[in-house]
Amino acid sequence: MAGKNSRRSFLVGSAAAAAAAAAGLSVGRELAPDTAPEAATTAPSVQPTTVEFHGAHQPGIADPTPTHASFLSFDLAAETGRTQLTQTMQRWTAVASALASGDTSVDPSSVSSGSGPGMFTMTVGVGGGMLDRLGIARPEPLIDLPAFPGDRLDHDASYGDIFVQLCSNDAIYLSGAVRAVRRTAGDALVPRWQLNGFRGVAASTSSTNGRNLMGQVDGTNNIAVSRGSSGGAVWIDDPSPEWMQGGSYVVLRRIRMLLSEWESADGVTRDRTIGRHTSSGAPLGARDESDPVDLAAVDTSGTLTTPDDAHIRLAAPRRGAGEEMLRRSYSYSNGQIAGGTDEDAGLIFVSYQRDPRTSFVPVQRRLAESDALNRFTEATTSAIFAVLPGVVDDDDWYGRRLLG
Amino acid sequence: MAGKNSRRSFLVGSAAAAAAAAAGLSVGRELAPDTAPEAATTAPSVQPTTVEFHGAHQPGIADPTPTHASFLSFDLAAETGRTQLTQTMQRWTAVASALASGDTSVDPSSVSSGSGPGMFTMTVGVGGGMLDRLGIARPEPLIDLPAFPGDRLDHDASYGDIFVQLCSNDAIYLSGAVRAVRRTAGDALVPRWQLNGFRGVAASTSSTNGRNLMGQVDGTNNIAVSRGSSGGAVWIDDPSPEWMQGGSYVVLRRIRMLLSEWESADGVTRDRTIGRHTSSGAPLGARDESDPVDLAAVDTSGTLTTPDDAHIRLAAPRRGAGEEMLRRSYSYSNGQIAGGTDEDAGLIFVSYQRDPRTSFVPVQRRLAESDALNRFTEATTSAIFAVLPGVVDDDDWYGRRLLG
Repeated sequence: MAGKNSRRSFLVGSAAAAAAAAAGLSVGRELAPDTAPEAATTAPSVQPTTVEFHGAHQPGIADPTPTHASFLSFDLAAETGRTQLTQTMQRWTAVASALASGDTSVDPSSVSSGSGPGMFTMTVGVGGGMLDRLGIARPEPLIDLPAFPGDRLDHDASYGDIFVQLCSNDAIYLSGAVRAVRRTAGDALVPRWQLNGFRGVAASTSSTNGRNLMGQVDGTNNIAVSRGSSGGAVWIDDPSPEWMQGGSYVVLRRIRMLLSEWESADGVTRDRTIGRHTSSGAPLGARDESDPVDLAAVDTSGTLTTPDDAHIRLAAPRRGAGEEMLRRSYSYSNGQIAGGTDEDAGLIFVSYQRDPRTSFVPVQRRLAESDALNRFTEATTSAIFAVLPGVVDDDDWYGRRLLG
Repeated sequence: MAGKNSRRSFLVGSAAAAAAAAAGLSVGRELAPDTAPEAATTAPSVQPTTVEFHGAHQPGIADPTPTHASFLSFDLAAETGRTQLTQTMQRWTAVASALASGDTSVDPSSVSSGSGPGMFTMTVGVGGGMLDRLGIARPEPLIDLPAFPGDRLDHDASYGDIFVQLCSNDAIYLSGAVRAVRRTAGDALVPRWQLNGFRGVAASTSSTNGRNLMGQVDGTNNIAVSRGSSGGAVWIDDPSPEWMQGGSYVVLRRIRMLLSEWESADGVTRDRTIGRHTSSGAPLGARDESDPVDLAAVDTSGTLTTPDDAHIRLAAPRRGAGEEMLRRSYSYSNGQIAGGTDEDAGLIFVSYQRDPRTSFVPVQRRLAESDALNRFTEATTSAIFAVLPGVVDDDDWYGRRLLG
């Protein structure tokens, strides 16, 4: 409960910080989310615009979700070995540290000059293929994701050797960060894909759960995770391998929504597809978003209130099975589909978990098999990465225990 | 000067409004920018989150620029005539009016439910081809844009019969607006293209000029336009045709930036390409962004301080030639180019002007011919539309004087 409360306190501070940032004020200095939450309560006039870079875990996982995110993936260049990769990781550490504090001198385009960091975070991961290539044994949870029925994956926008997640409340600051990461990757890495996502202002600055582009309240019953904790559903506590201790695993899936078809479906169909009332986010038969979900409830004729194939029934983690994960998804829109007449838009599903084999994979298998939502969606990107532990101090760098 | 001052007062109010919106507060009621600017000064605790919908001119032109914009274009369906188009325009009027006041019941996806309007504006225009088709004489300024040297236009993402510009400080609210506009277009219109743009928080909430993705301070020396005024460089004062009186013309050009090449150029090259110092935005040889540009200045050897082919030399409006226009551009990023290794990113250049024949066209001809910036950019979208006058009251609708 302590972790949950300190997170809540921090969110209050964060809302005011975003307000200050929106007002063009420069008020930031680091306020570590879980180490000094009371500062946000006692000093409302000085609000954080920055997230602490150093720590046992990387930022951008347990921290609040800013309004904008860019997700990048790279492959190792043909000649890249441990030395070149180490140099890139060291340069990226300097980039992330500077940008986290609002220092934009690392941005080669200067676009971010004059903008505030807006709770900037950078989070780095590595793919299984890269470990294979460098002759490093994969941690057991770092599987290749299986092919799920119904996937229509864009190969060029899936997989990858290296992963970078960048978040900020300012899209211009974020653009500068993307340029800095691309530039300092140097010749060691070949850019593979980049996806840009957004959230609503309210969902990024308060404890309100935002809506996704289908109008579903997204993030209900998400788990609470603190950057100050260890173990649990997200953080790896296990020293085998030692270089992953304090890290996590991230799964990213781009899910295109067939919005025109969804909007043509009637309200009852939509509600029964999800298992919640679109208007309130409440479970079927309940009133409030936070009302408990009773998947066993039946109506007077004995029919299940929440249909067999409702999204929330299949997505709900099985108790005691280790299926819990932290969701941190963003919406996306690429404008109109080339040659088509509707938007290319949907959800960039992002989950962080200790072990995808017991969490994402079994849940996604259930969904792929029978989720009523499947007729309105298609997965076009799929990727999994081992998220490195945090950079603990100025002498440390991304992956030092892996590559050093 | 009165117009400029009232605009400045409003911008102060706007910054606080965005701050309030970011803090998740719901404080809005309309505060018309140019009719009651003093309210923003005297009542700082109640800040606008809405822009007045009704007026002699449409919103979204003279108003401040929110952080997010979507630009949509449609073509008339094969069987669409005046009747079907009138019905669409009437539905759109209801949509725009509702969304401007924060009423999201018109959003078929419900995505915007629970979000604030964030200074939402909708702005509607019509293309020359549509007028030809309906047998309506084109206003003389509504030319087809000439082919400019160097253009690499994507035909499917250029031109169009109908134009809609949507702006909001909340990307989720904006997404709901896009869905509402698409849905209520009905079968009368075929969606042609949609481009999504963004600006930085500071540039949207203060009088600071934002930077574009090349790091150039963008919008310096922009003209000041008030929605409460008439005539001038933007508003049409001329009653021929009467249905355009109070309207304007919009030019939209998507300009892809070759960012990796730009970032590889040295600082001196970049500054001389633009004619300004990237760091400060000051003209070459000057110190501050607001310092006057002296295009005739020479150094001790008699060489022009601002090179012959510098962007600002060619872009500067010729005095007394009617070249002035109001720029209202947004940055865009579509993530990584499919099959490539760099971002598809750049500028959605948007200008509003009374007559594109004397303003945008001659300026763009100069730029296309010899702008040093051309080697770092390529235009991929080009479009021009007649922007209808404002909807004056609840009985009025978009284009009533054109179609009614």
